[in-house]
Amino acid sequence: MSTTERLIYLPLGGAGEIGMNAYVYGYGEAGREKLIVVDLGVTFPDMGSTPGVDLIFPDISWLEARRHDIEGIFITHAHEDHVGAIGHLWDKLGAPIYARSFTSHIARRKMADQGHPEALVKTAEAWPSQIEVGAFQVAFIPISHSIPESSGLLISTPAGRIIHTGDFKMDETPMVGEAFDPALWEEVSKDGVKALVCDSTNVFSEHAGRSEASLGKNIEALVASAPEMVVATTFASNVARVKTLAEAGVRAGRSICLMGRAMRTMIEASIETGVLKDFPTVVTPEDAKSIPRAHLMLLATGSQGERRAATAQLAHGKFQGMELREGDLFLFSSKTIPGNEKDVIRIINQLSEKGVDVVDDSNGTYHVSGHANRPDLQRMHEITKPQCIIPMHGEHRHLRAHQKLAEASGHASVVCVNGMMLDLSGNAPKVVEYVETGRVYLDGTVQYGALDGIMRERIKMAMNGLVHVNIVMDDEDDFFAEPWVEIRGLPTTGRSHGALEDILEEDVSQFLGRAKQKTRQDDDALEDEVRKIVRQTTLSELGKKPEVSVTISRLV
Amino acid sequence: MSTTERLIYLPLGGAGEIGMNAYVYGYGEAGREKLIVVDLGVTFPDMGSTPGVDLIFPDISWLEARRHDIEGIFITHAHEDHVGAIGHLWDKLGAPIYARSFTSHIARRKMADQGHPEALVKTAEAWPSQIEVGAFQVAFIPISHSIPESSGLLISTPAGRIIHTGDFKMDETPMVGEAFDPALWEEVSKDGVKALVCDSTNVFSEHAGRSEASLGKNIEALVASAPEMVVATTFASNVARVKTLAEAGVRAGRSICLMGRAMRTMIEASIETGVLKDFPTVVTPEDAKSIPRAHLMLLATGSQGERRAATAQLAHGKFQGMELREGDLFLFSSKTIPGNEKDVIRIINQLSEKGVDVVDDSNGTYHVSGHANRPDLQRMHEITKPQCIIPMHGEHRHLRAHQKLAEASGHASVVCVNGMMLDLSGNAPKVVEYVETGRVYLDGTVQYGALDGIMRERIKMAMNGLVHVNIVMDDEDDFFAEPWVEIRGLPTTGRSHGALEDILEEDVSQFLGRAKQKTRQDDDALEDEVRKIVRQTTLSELGKKPEVSVTISRLV
Repeated sequence: MSTTERLIYLPLGGAGEIGMNAYVYGYGEAGREKLIVVDLGVTFPDMGSTPGVDLIFPDISWLEARRHDIEGIFITHAHEDHVGAIGHLWDKLGAPIYARSFTSHIARRKMADQGHPEALVKTAEAWPSQIEVGAFQVAFIPISHSIPESSGLLISTPAGRIIHTGDFKMDETPMVGEAFDPALWEEVSKDGVKALVCDSTNVFSEHAGRSEASLGKNIEALVASAPEMVVATTFASNVARVKTLAEAGVRAGRSICLMGRAMRTMIEASIETGVLKDFPTVVTPEDAKSIPRAHLMLLATGSQGERRAATAQLAHGKFQGMELREGDLFLFSSKTIPGNEKDVIRIINQLSEKGVDVVDDSNGTYHVSGHANRPDLQRMHEITKPQCIIPMHGEHRHLRAHQKLAEASGHASVVCVNGMMLDLSGNAPKVVEYVETGRVYLDGTVQYGALDGIMRERIKMAMNGLVHVNIVMDDEDDFFAEPWVEIRGLPTTGRSHGALEDILEEDVSQFLGRAKQKTRQDDDALEDEVRKIVRQTTLSELGKKPEVSVTISRLV
Repeated sequence: MSTTERLIYLPLGGAGEIGMNAYVYGYGEAGREKLIVVDLGVTFPDMGSTPGVDLIFPDISWLEARRHDIEGIFITHAHEDHVGAIGHLWDKLGAPIYARSFTSHIARRKMADQGHPEALVKTAEAWPSQIEVGAFQVAFIPISHSIPESSGLLISTPAGRIIHTGDFKMDETPMVGEAFDPALWEEVSKDGVKALVCDSTNVFSEHAGRSEASLGKNIEALVASAPEMVVATTFASNVARVKTLAEAGVRAGRSICLMGRAMRTMIEASIETGVLKDFPTVVTPEDAKSIPRAHLMLLATGSQGERRAATAQLAHGKFQGMELREGDLFLFSSKTIPGNEKDVIRIINQLSEKGVDVVDDSNGTYHVSGHANRPDLQRMHEITKPQCIIPMHGEHRHLRAHQKLAEASGHASVVCVNGMMLDLSGNAPKVVEYVETGRVYLDGTVQYGALDGIMRERIKMAMNGLVHVNIVMDDEDDFFAEPWVEIRGLPTTGRSHGALEDILEEDVSQFLGRAKQKTRQDDDALEDEVRKIVRQTTLSELGKKPEVSVTISRLV
């Protein structure tokens, strides 16, 4: 390493939030580093703050401006918050994509969906295989998580080695995919680790994580005790859980039926890529109808209450000909992600109305997390013995707690949030720059910035309702016809019990009648005055001030 | 009781949801019963489903149509979901209001806020005092909850006695207000209870509830261990908790300062009505500034993340001159209500960014619930020995679980949701009628029905954005000027990189140029066609179809 060269770390998404992961590493002369990108994920919108938005991406303008310096994009695993943006953002970056087999399979579909060649996604072998891109050597290190083939990365540079854990847990019996192997992680760390960039999601969970293998017997007993049909839901991408559920169902004497597209495509992808070898035979929804309910178990998508998924539809009515009845059992083998509580609770109440018994994760018997808990994080620190620990994949509270945990065992650590560039070349990480970052919304087919004001306009319309005023002026600056008012998202009558539109038209009309020539000549002045009158009258009628739009047409 | 007379129960709010409680009891000839109302509460809106709404009330049209049969309105306690609608709905009912001293104090303020005479609220004494209204005798039975003077009701009628528990827990050392007294409840039940109408909120909590008195030492130890300023938040109406926190702070050597209007008004109301006798001396926010941080404890409103409350403002910046710093401690002595998670988590992250340590309720050390848990509910069933148990104050899942619990111990029970009228006269409750119910929104000063379509319009504008088209036609059905297009809540450019408004104007203009005379004469046909074109062009430009409003002005 020449003394003018440096090794940098820059999160653009995922550090200070859980979602839309996007991390950058760079090596080279300061300001002219060659770059690699780790993960390109999405975050999901919600009606409260991002109405109408389809997906949320990290703002990668900084990367786009340096696209010719990007050596490669590495995807750790196939969860949406790590791979979901690859198809939408790839043409801003234009670099080859590397991932292991199962992840590649998913990434290729995402590329194809956006019209990009699938061949841009290269399938990588796991450690000890290494990919050389510029000054970087990158190895995929298998680790357990809640999706097959999740991997950490060993990133070797002339300035030292970084371990980027990706999402992980320490499951030595994960049912599907590779077990956590402490010997492997010791081996990859043995030549010294400059920085451990580490998952922080479960830093507040005090007890060591439990294995996927601990669930099978519990689920089997539950299913065996059910007198009628059983439905279980979990994330479709949690292939190990889907297998655990299916096998428990089979042991309890049930035929298994997969409900929902994601459930089928994930199982198919797992079989096709070889990560899933002995999944029980399933029946189609069509065949399921002729099986006695007490011998049937459905595995359904939609554990987070997604409105179009199988779970929501089964709770509401029928789905693919199947219908829930009194005495059926519904199992949520999943945790509700913060923000989804209302949707999940709505479904549980609908199930209750049908007389269906619901079992959830509240006592931990039927679900284990896919992330490393506090003691597991400490163990990872001990195994890899890094010079410093940089918490990632967490909200600020998680990063800060993880930093404290790292410091408590004598490690250098820093809370590094989106946009903070660290220089990792020296003995301790140093903040060298703040980069503008943020969120980009995908809305229909258009991408725009979170701060462009479009959401603000939408939310204001939704909060305040809208009044539209239409005025036609003649060529002598007289108003040509009576003003025309239309309301939207407001009650039609208020305090005076007259029609609000009529009252507003009358008030605007009176104003126009008395407006001075100077005002009548000036569209802006006219609009301002009309807006004021409309807001004032509406306030008096409805007790609230609406958004107002005024159109002035001049006949010339 | 004549054989043609009957005793009915009809929930209009609170049964099938947690919120907007409103229960009706009636006695008399079928269809001509005299009525009493128990509680008139609100539910709170959210941006996702009720943008812009201020409060949500039960639809009491059924009661309004029978206003002359209403003998009285009884308020069990002063929580918003029980008393919050009294001022807004009273003029539809016009009956006297009865409540105990503290609750009356709050109810009077709510009446005065809406311009009603405070004297309509009568202060009731607790049992053995009884209020006679028509055929009903109603007694307030003190019970513990998370607000002072919460009461169950013993409702005696010629057809038998009903116990309506209100919200309750079984706290024999509640710190403020009356302890739960099993002997008292045995006494009021001794002559036989026809129906126990019972709180179901915590039916899923397996272990017996804990007492308020269990918290003081934990909180004191936490506060004593804090090196800098301590802030604690809880519901202001949880006067016992505010006292527990304040006393723990004083024992830990701190001066106490109340932050937020609700915190001060609730404490004042408690002192004024005599329910709070020995609250520690507090300092003003002004005086607090000169007290060393290590000797100061703030008690702040806003435990649910409410944006304008003290907690949110302290997390964001300053509040009344106080500001949080690195090393301060923030305690949530509260549970986050489902739906509020995102707001609370946002605040915790803001506190984390300031370097403030946050302690929450996750291990139950600093908060106890105000509702009876499953074993407490069983104990209530045993003490009161009712003929039947009617679960209330719960979502469907709670009511159903409570029904199962009741049936498991041999009680008749029925899940009775809003709008189901039960005849309680016989040996078992019988559904006799379904009444139309629903929700009413308060939006500004106007009340309208949840199904009036206004929310649907708002949500569609927020999801899809809005395009307004303005067309001026002359007296020969030619268009007089170029059409004018305005967009709101949409990106200004899309696929073709031209200004969307210009592209839409061009497309509409072309259409108008080729439109047949018949279409040009017909406003509805013209609007339909223009709407179609705008939606199609916008779909092609932005990938989504907007809401469209079209104004046609005709010069005559």
